[in-house]
Amino acid sequence: MSPELSPREGPARRVASVVGLVDQRAEEYLGLHRAVPPEVLTALRTANVTNYSIYRHGDLLFSYLEYRGTDYETDMARLAADPATQRWWSTVMPMQRSLRAHPDEPWWTGLAEVFHLD
Amino acid sequence: MSPELSPREGPARRVASVVGLVDQRAEEYLGLHRAVPPEVLTALRTANVTNYSIYRHGDLLFSYLEYRGTDYETDMARLAADPATQRWWSTVMPMQRSLRAHPDEPWWTGLAEVFHLD
Repeated sequence: MSPELSPREGPARRVASVVGLVDQRAEEYLGLHRAVPPEVLTALRTANVTNYSIYRHGDLLFSYLEYRGTDYETDMARLAADPATQRWWSTVMPMQRSLRAHPDEPWWTGLAEVFHLD
Repeated sequence: MSPELSPREGPARRVASVVGLVDQRAEEYLGLHRAVPPEVLTALRTANVTNYSIYRHGDLLFSYLEYRGTDYETDMARLAADPATQRWWSTVMPMQRSLRAHPDEPWWTGLAEVFHLD
């Protein structure tokens, strides 16, 4: 048997995605992200989200994160059920414009990896 | 004095950037990136580029990398002078469309970080 590794020592699953930024609310969005509530950061860490960055390109937001847990769907469902996360999302989502083609798709649109070098 | 760390053990400098993708050449671009010449990968590693990913969003390419050397400008200048890298760039740059505002700016446009969680 292979030795047990804690999740954070396991291989990362890279997740990149994109969402629109509502131009009139851009400064407010940027300001909020300079002081994200600690409970929101804790919920992300509990969901095994690591090395998470968001970048802006005009009216687009790109995110990159590394998931280091063992059950991505369950961790993301738990994150979505976290009250602090729900309050945060209800604040920031009106500042975003989803690029999804259908309401059943995730709010942030996943990006295809073209290249990777470790 | 602090202990000597090898560059790859030092803190990462995150670099995210964006460039356009020429629609008519997108498939060719994607295909080339499934088999990047080993000399190009070696030159990137020698330049202390780690955890380098490129993602596509329509006619945009988004890149994320972690620089783990101690002199970014010198490493990037050395990379730009590498013959295999120059050949590679002369192949792929016509498939890209720079978004820079001025020819003196870098081909890929750097993105501002909005948020980061380790």
